[in-house]
Amino acid sequence: MDIYKFLRKVREDKPLVHHITNWVTIYDCANIVKVFGASPVMAHAKEEVKDMVNIASALVLNIGTLTLDIIEAMIIAGRAANNKGIPVILDVCGAGATKLRDDKCFEILDEVKISIIKGNSSEIARIAGENSATKGVDAGEVNKDLYSIAKTLGKRYHSTIVITGKEDIIADETGKCYSVENGVPMMANIVGTGCMATSVIGTFAAIEKNCAMAAAAGLCCFEIASEGALEKSRGPGSFKVNLFDEVFHLSQETIERYKKVVIKE
Amino acid sequence: MDIYKFLRKVREDKPLVHHITNWVTIYDCANIVKVFGASPVMAHAKEEVKDMVNIASALVLNIGTLTLDIIEAMIIAGRAANNKGIPVILDVCGAGATKLRDDKCFEILDEVKISIIKGNSSEIARIAGENSATKGVDAGEVNKDLYSIAKTLGKRYHSTIVITGKEDIIADETGKCYSVENGVPMMANIVGTGCMATSVIGTFAAIEKNCAMAAAAGLCCFEIASEGALEKSRGPGSFKVNLFDEVFHLSQETIERYKKVVIKE
Amino acid sequence: MDIYKFLRKVREDKPLVHHITNWVTIYDCANIVKVFGASPVMAHAKEEVKDMVNIASALVLNIGTLTLDIIEAMIIAGRAANNKGIPVILDVCGAGATKLRDDKCFEILDEVKISIIKGNSSEIARIAGENSATKGVDAGEVNKDLYSIAKTLGKRYHSTIVITGKEDIIADETGKCYSVENGVPMMANIVGTGCMATSVIGTFAAIEKNCAMAAAAGLCCFEIASEGALEKSRGPGSFKVNLFDEVFHLSQETIERYKKVVIKE
Repeated sequence: MDIYKFLRKVREDKPLVHHITNWVTIYDCANIVKVFGASPVMAHAKEEVKDMVNIASALVLNIGTLTLDIIEAMIIAGRAANNKGIPVILDVCGAGATKLRDDKCFEILDEVKISIIKGNSSEIARIAGENSATKGVDAGEVNKDLYSIAKTLGKRYHSTIVITGKEDIIADETGKCYSVENGVPMMANIVGTGCMATSVIGTFAAIEKNCAMAAAAGLCCFEIASEGALEKSRGPGSFKVNLFDEVFHLSQETIERYKKVVIKE
Repeated sequence: MDIYKFLRKVREDKPLVHHITNWVTIYDCANIVKVFGASPVMAHAKEEVKDMVNIASALVLNIGTLTLDIIEAMIIAGRAANNKGIPVILDVCGAGATKLRDDKCFEILDEVKISIIKGNSSEIARIAGENSATKGVDAGEVNKDLYSIAKTLGKRYHSTIVITGKEDIIADETGKCYSVENGVPMMANIVGTGCMATSVIGTFAAIEKNCAMAAAAGLCCFEIASEGALEKSRGPGSFKVNLFDEVFHLSQETIERYKKVVIKE
Repeated sequence: MDIYKFLRKVREDKPLVHHITNWVTIYDCANIVKVFGASPVMAHAKEEVKDMVNIASALVLNIGTLTLDIIEAMIIAGRAANNKGIPVILDVCGAGATKLRDDKCFEILDEVKISIIKGNSSEIARIAGENSATKGVDAGEVNKDLYSIAKTLGKRYHSTIVITGKEDIIADETGKCYSVENGVPMMANIVGTGCMATSVIGTFAAIEKNCAMAAAAGLCCFEIASEGALEKSRGPGSFKVNLFDEVFHLSQETIERYKKVVIKE
């Protein structure tokens, strides 16, 4: 897969990526989109989300700090995105931690056609109907093959499924799978890398219709940057700073040299 | 203009700068005020904003993630600030992107005497009645002389107008203009520099009655710091870190040596 | 006091620390918990806070950007925490600045059994009934012995009281006091260190029933890290980055060498 082609298109097109996201990582979500070369906008008033979607190229929804008002705005925005034909990416952040999160994920999935459903292993397992529990927003144990979960869920919702972790698993709606094996464990030592990954996927989906390839390319770029960042870092504070520097300077040569994207079947 | 005199007064008086701002850059807005040596406070409950204004020296309003509740709190706070006689600074963040943003900017401008209206070129053009479009919160094209727009708008609202960009344009309510030509393009590669600039302007307006001079001095200091930061940075992540370090250490000597503030007429 | 024992237990148990906090420092609150090795979760919908408390080991409440809705969610969550028997930590951020903040602190204290009340000198003085004023969220003058205020307040609410400042004062509900004399003045030059301190206290209270010892240990670790960070920093921007790096690498040796915790009586 020519990963750099996607990155170059992000930098050239500078797509507007509309987010309705959580209050914890909202800055990081916006900033990673900006540093990748695109244009983030965060807007959640139900009176304006439709208008914002109408100038955007992708919509990212993240339920990390959901309230009923925010979910209502997400559904309005999601339907507008469906009408316009732009991709909608849903981070099912914290699914499996509370009943509200589970219920609202299913409500969004009922009301809006989601192009990409993204979460960690226990979040996605819960959405797939498995009996997993999520520890707040951190992954819990899952006793079932993740590829199988991803494929089943993808076919059910006609969506691309992304399960992030040590190995990222991507399944398109036909069951075709990719894995991205870049990245470093330090990503799990700071808050926000999961949410940023979703925003990056949304950014790449804004410029590429094949959602699975967009997700694989975005994650690969983000995680190659994390590898470069780790080498220059003394701990999680400097790692996060260097992560933005590395994303900004990602080159075709670096991507070609380090990419670990595998087509599974 | 003796720019350092303003900075010294900020550091000595440590004015309390009350913000009602957006959820994306709220930390950066607070932190830049703190690092400049003043005292930020963020409070948006409509039940308390009047009390907070009553102990503050300036009020900064930023509609970046507006909702109807937040606008209501802004108007209550703004009227209290008008009654008390402290300056109100309005960042018309995203004006031109959605109808709600345009409408609410005009509603605030109708209900509250704004001392300084600040935005990028397409945001200010829209408030001035031009047919510009803003790409989310990033500037779009404007096909008209920005000085002329700023002067017209300043006279209309009896306000100081600040248009940020490669060259910052400041027009006071009589039409007198300043430009600030410091700063680096890297500022546009991270989220938050525009919002921070507004908070800096608010901080300087808290200690200086001439709003145009306060805005020019604040922007000049902030942007000289950005020049120092860029030299020490490898990319946008380290640039932002260094920006805070540079602001903290800004000296009279550095300001005198690098300031590029021009009185236009 | 064997401070490292507490830190090791945080890292081993990785307790889930549920926050209902402010929109300014919410990221930093989450990230410091994560970097200490525990698991933060932020959730404020009144429909889910009870469920989140039920999987958490401590609840941190911070009224920094309070609204009536948020206070309602805090009280629901606080009662659930009381029922479950997990500690509740209240940061009375900005008490003394507005009537709403004072009123809502007292309402929370009436409705919820608070394990640890934490604030700066003027905030705690105000809660104790002294006539102090807080400058937004920055400490104002207090003309009374802080130990005496802490002891009186602790006995009144059967709570541990923490007053942060150059010297941190901790009084348990019996009147036994500790002081922590680590830390650097640079902590006051950036936004968020006070809120992060509260989150750290909550994290240590999640693994240790003696709230005063948990608070002393948590503050001591956080502030030793600040001392290491300062040595490597050029200003407040790099200081904050280095603070996270230092916390991550805190060792038994460093803690034993630098700890300044004094049992007062």
